[in-house]
Amino acid sequence: MQAIAKLRSGPGGDLIETPRPEPAPRELLVRVKAASICGTDVHIYDWDPWAAGRVKPPLVLGHEFGGIVEAVGEQVTSFRPGDLVSAETHIVCDRCYQCRVGQAHICQDVSILGVDRDGAFAEFVTIPEQNAWLNPPDMSPEVAAIQEPMGNAVHTVLAGAVAGLRVAVLGCGPIGLLSVAVARACGASAVYAVEPSAYRRGLAARLGATLTLDPRDTNPADRVRELTGGEGADVVLEMSGNPGAVVHGLRMARNGGRVSLLGLPPRPLEIDLSNDVVMRGLTLQGIAGRRMYATWYQTRELLASGQVDPAPLITHRFDLASFGKAFELVKRGECGKVVLLP
Amino acid sequence: MQAIAKLRSGPGGDLIETPRPEPAPRELLVRVKAASICGTDVHIYDWDPWAAGRVKPPLVLGHEFGGIVEAVGEQVTSFRPGDLVSAETHIVCDRCYQCRVGQAHICQDVSILGVDRDGAFAEFVTIPEQNAWLNPPDMSPEVAAIQEPMGNAVHTVLAGAVAGLRVAVLGCGPIGLLSVAVARACGASAVYAVEPSAYRRGLAARLGATLTLDPRDTNPADRVRELTGGEGADVVLEMSGNPGAVVHGLRMARNGGRVSLLGLPPRPLEIDLSNDVVMRGLTLQGIAGRRMYATWYQTRELLASGQVDPAPLITHRFDLASFGKAFELVKRGECGKVVLLP
Amino acid sequence: MQAIAKLRSGPGGDLIETPRPEPAPRELLVRVKAASICGTDVHIYDWDPWAAGRVKPPLVLGHEFGGIVEAVGEQVTSFRPGDLVSAETHIVCDRCYQCRVGQAHICQDVSILGVDRDGAFAEFVTIPEQNAWLNPPDMSPEVAAIQEPMGNAVHTVLAGAVAGLRVAVLGCGPIGLLSVAVARACGASAVYAVEPSAYRRGLAARLGATLTLDPRDTNPADRVRELTGGEGADVVLEMSGNPGAVVHGLRMARNGGRVSLLGLPPRPLEIDLSNDVVMRGLTLQGIAGRRMYATWYQTRELLASGQVDPAPLITHRFDLASFGKAFELVKRGECGKVVLLP
Amino acid sequence: MQAIAKLRSGPGGDLIETPRPEPAPRELLVRVKAASICGTDVHIYDWDPWAAGRVKPPLVLGHEFGGIVEAVGEQVTSFRPGDLVSAETHIVCDRCYQCRVGQAHICQDVSILGVDRDGAFAEFVTIPEQNAWLNPPDMSPEVAAIQEPMGNAVHTVLAGAVAGLRVAVLGCGPIGLLSVAVARACGASAVYAVEPSAYRRGLAARLGATLTLDPRDTNPADRVRELTGGEGADVVLEMSGNPGAVVHGLRMARNGGRVSLLGLPPRPLEIDLSNDVVMRGLTLQGIAGRRMYATWYQTRELLASGQVDPAPLITHRFDLASFGKAFELVKRGECGKVVLLP
Repeated sequence: MQAIAKLRSGPGGDLIETPRPEPAPRELLVRVKAASICGTDVHIYDWDPWAAGRVKPPLVLGHEFGGIVEAVGEQVTSFRPGDLVSAETHIVCDRCYQCRVGQAHICQDVSILGVDRDGAFAEFVTIPEQNAWLNPPDMSPEVAAIQEPMGNAVHTVLAGAVAGLRVAVLGCGPIGLLSVAVARACGASAVYAVEPSAYRRGLAARLGATLTLDPRDTNPADRVRELTGGEGADVVLEMSGNPGAVVHGLRMARNGGRVSLLGLPPRPLEIDLSNDVVMRGLTLQGIAGRRMYATWYQTRELLASGQVDPAPLITHRFDLASFGKAFELVKRGECGKVVLLP
Repeated sequence: MQAIAKLRSGPGGDLIETPRPEPAPRELLVRVKAASICGTDVHIYDWDPWAAGRVKPPLVLGHEFGGIVEAVGEQVTSFRPGDLVSAETHIVCDRCYQCRVGQAHICQDVSILGVDRDGAFAEFVTIPEQNAWLNPPDMSPEVAAIQEPMGNAVHTVLAGAVAGLRVAVLGCGPIGLLSVAVARACGASAVYAVEPSAYRRGLAARLGATLTLDPRDTNPADRVRELTGGEGADVVLEMSGNPGAVVHGLRMARNGGRVSLLGLPPRPLEIDLSNDVVMRGLTLQGIAGRRMYATWYQTRELLASGQVDPAPLITHRFDLASFGKAFELVKRGECGKVVLLP
Repeated sequence: MQAIAKLRSGPGGDLIETPRPEPAPRELLVRVKAASICGTDVHIYDWDPWAAGRVKPPLVLGHEFGGIVEAVGEQVTSFRPGDLVSAETHIVCDRCYQCRVGQAHICQDVSILGVDRDGAFAEFVTIPEQNAWLNPPDMSPEVAAIQEPMGNAVHTVLAGAVAGLRVAVLGCGPIGLLSVAVARACGASAVYAVEPSAYRRGLAARLGATLTLDPRDTNPADRVRELTGGEGADVVLEMSGNPGAVVHGLRMARNGGRVSLLGLPPRPLEIDLSNDVVMRGLTLQGIAGRRMYATWYQTRELLASGQVDPAPLITHRFDLASFGKAFELVKRGECGKVVLLP
Repeated sequence: MQAIAKLRSGPGGDLIETPRPEPAPRELLVRVKAASICGTDVHIYDWDPWAAGRVKPPLVLGHEFGGIVEAVGEQVTSFRPGDLVSAETHIVCDRCYQCRVGQAHICQDVSILGVDRDGAFAEFVTIPEQNAWLNPPDMSPEVAAIQEPMGNAVHTVLAGAVAGLRVAVLGCGPIGLLSVAVARACGASAVYAVEPSAYRRGLAARLGATLTLDPRDTNPADRVRELTGGEGADVVLEMSGNPGAVVHGLRMARNGGRVSLLGLPPRPLEIDLSNDVVMRGLTLQGIAGRRMYATWYQTRELLASGQVDPAPLITHRFDLASFGKAFELVKRGECGKVVLLP
């Protein structure tokens, strides 16, 4: 089969021919119909310090996908060939405290598809039965694929109340954009989207932002305070990992507000805890992955009901062989979600 | 001024001429622009056992209203003549445990406008400054009035999660109808509205119900289970007070689901706690009034943002002198919200 | 091996010789060192309507136990012979919504040890690896056994706040008694224990109740209101299943209080929802089983730290052959926890 | 009357004779029986940058106190001369969003006793009726005084679950020490107290710490991980404001744990959000003041029930004239709580 792989340490990737994998007794073999590119894939492709410290080539990249079950291992009981599935990409240990108390998304011994084992930028991928998510047969494989990043957005937005509240979203990459749509669908009365790219601000508006801000033109913390009569936003969703955005995020939150952090700053950053967090009674939440599997049910429902329409998000499609162009586009940022069609 | 009053014990009411009230030092005098009829008003009008046990005539009826501040008492500091206000109708003691810990809506020593002191079916009404809610000047007085019952709906719907969840609403009087709209605006993936009146089922559909059910045609608990693949509704909002509806509500909730009870059954009713509540891990919530004043902020935001449009709910308008027709219409139930225009 | 079994429909039980069971690939074979008698065992022994409708003889009774792993199935990875284990007695489906979102204790397709499959009143019992709980090697097998009912108490008490709050416990069977101890250990400022048996009131006092009440001498709702300056208890734990106690429980709760229901009333009962629940903003919680496995961790910690000392609870011990006397004692109620020692 | 005042900008304080204050219509005049020294008093005494930016001399210092009502303003309705009272020291605006939704402890327009208006290191002090807290007449005035800092501890500890959990307390000044006692009383299975002062580690042990650590001898994050089998503490309470302690605190928390921050770092500090917060799913809470007035009720109950005994905390007493020695002792840190007796 064809696949996009990292064959050795260092930047770049290769389109390879490799044997179709065999499912283990409790695994599914899935024929990938659509696979979308995530920032994590770019980190590995570019071989940044994080990737260099974690990834062991050779590795097939990719983890967001929708596909059709081709075959099942002998102990699989809940799926059969022909099912349209997506995957929770965190493969968890099922033994640690977190796994045993319903917090498997922060398992102490997690392994990730496309990072720690072969992924989905390929014609076929194997996944544990436990990680497979059954979709309705008429779902678009592209939407099936983006349920995984949409799950990040759903997890972040619904980690606290949003109905009737004013929400700021910092960073409008695909997960930020999906957060805009989810927040609005879940009753946010205002969604302020902060993003330097004009292209992405345009997408944010299409996905439901009530106002978009370019952080280079205006101090976003001051602007959000002004928009909220001096009070600040009830909820701040930090989706960029930009250190400046984190600081702005804390300052634009109202006293007692929630600041949910999904973006990963590339380095430690200075925070004025006394003035920006403690005395104002803020709550900061680190958000990782998706609740297993509450988030998947919520995501399914928001899609099936039409409360969230992710169509505007999917802006570009490529075949596997054009992966280089696809990665370049993602790095340039003039796109929403970019999908590979094996 | 003109007012609708209960002058003596027994059914009915009178249109009277009575002196314009004077505001106390911390009160506002408000010129009523619109006042809507609540089920409580009907109980008093009809002089049911509850009313007979509580109300002391003479009493001006009515508590849901929007109006313009005409004058303010000498110690009032936050309002001035010309402000468009609504009122939280629970006048609380500010001293009991509940008042002191942020649960004033269940104050142990509450007094209610139009029940325990003169109300708003009149040209003028006085209210404590503390109970006044400032509206934007361009809000319709009718919408200003229905913020109070909408607050009941907001309190009920948002007493737990609804985003991405399947919600059943039992009873589509005005508060039930507003609950349909609020649940949908806050991300419910399905809203099943159960109501015997075809007129009100029609309104429920207009306000966002994804399905309406006539409980005389079908067993609603069975039907909701069927609609949810056997699981049951995640959230059940009991807005009718009908004893049969309560039992259906418990049975249609999924294991671990939430059943929020706002309707007031007229008498004790039999509940199979073991099978319908304990073994299935349900949570039942008694819902009274509105959170003071978190609910008012949420309601304001849902209206101002357009997330909830209550316009279809307001179906009929009468002048004060036609109050008899208005009450008859409310009792017949072929209406949404009925508004009096003094 | 020896075992106590229900061989046919109808009251009673038999001491039998039966082959030692074989563990399936993912099961453990455990040599039972101590097994305690639960109310459920009595229902089956007495063959009450619930038991008659559910239990399929022949069946070995019993589910609360501590024992030593004797052998493990070939796919077991986390346990080995010699481990001292207890068991979560709810064997869950791992597929339903509840199992998938961290609410497995209310699984839609549960099977219970000693109810739906052979139990622990025997020299040996088999359990799924997934249900086994590893204890420290020096724990008393009796304490190992009572972690299961103590888990019910921990789940009930900690289903909401108790620290600095006034708690009423209705019914002082073993789970009620453990609830007294857990509530006090977790910061309850008062624990009012309501129980008709003088013997059990004495145990309640030893386990930490600040006051005990005989419901035949006094109206417990009135008395608790009096003790709390008219406010009512912040938290009510209904552990008896007695219909009268449920009603008293609702009436003794303060406005906005929590009423957690673990006791199983034998039949539907009348509740005045309007006055006792809705208008006073109560929250009622049905409590089933133990959170899997958060409750087990909490229970382990409360025991290991000495915050809860369950020793006074274990009042009687019998060998298997004396099971008849043991059951009679439990039915008489002049006991705390009764343990069988195979 | 005698009072300790800051008469001009700059370090130090003066014992002055000043007229007894008059209560305003809604204020109480209180004869101070005991007043304890807080770190905030030391900041003002030493005239640190925060104090220089906020305090406007002349000002009577002090805010933690217990005293007897001497006289009441004419509109006061709930107190009378002879009552033993303490004070919530945050005087709030009652108008902002936070005040209106039950979060007055983070009021946007707060004024603080002894910081923004004359305080309690004096024979008499005036306080708003709304801020007065009635104590039982037999409470020691010293304990009455320390309810205010104990409220900080109660607010911090009970801002999430602690029962059956392992808690680390960083910093054993008076509030940290009270947090140790409160956590233990509320069911914490372990309390690890981290503090460089041997004197204060000794107090921590007396107040219930299960283990004390000197952060100069050992890396506290590593040590707490070791003590918890590698998992980390479930709850971390940062009471020191020491930048190093904050970083250790994040690292010793388990994945998904709670880190409550009450200490005020004197300057911004570097945090590795990605590795220490986001990917591990931590929740950070800024904690300010006391919940008004839920915290006061909880504190009252923990004291009245004997669940918390603060006696070991109160180590030194001085008359007003010896305030210089008292402040020096507090700055040296070889003390628990230091009380002034006017």
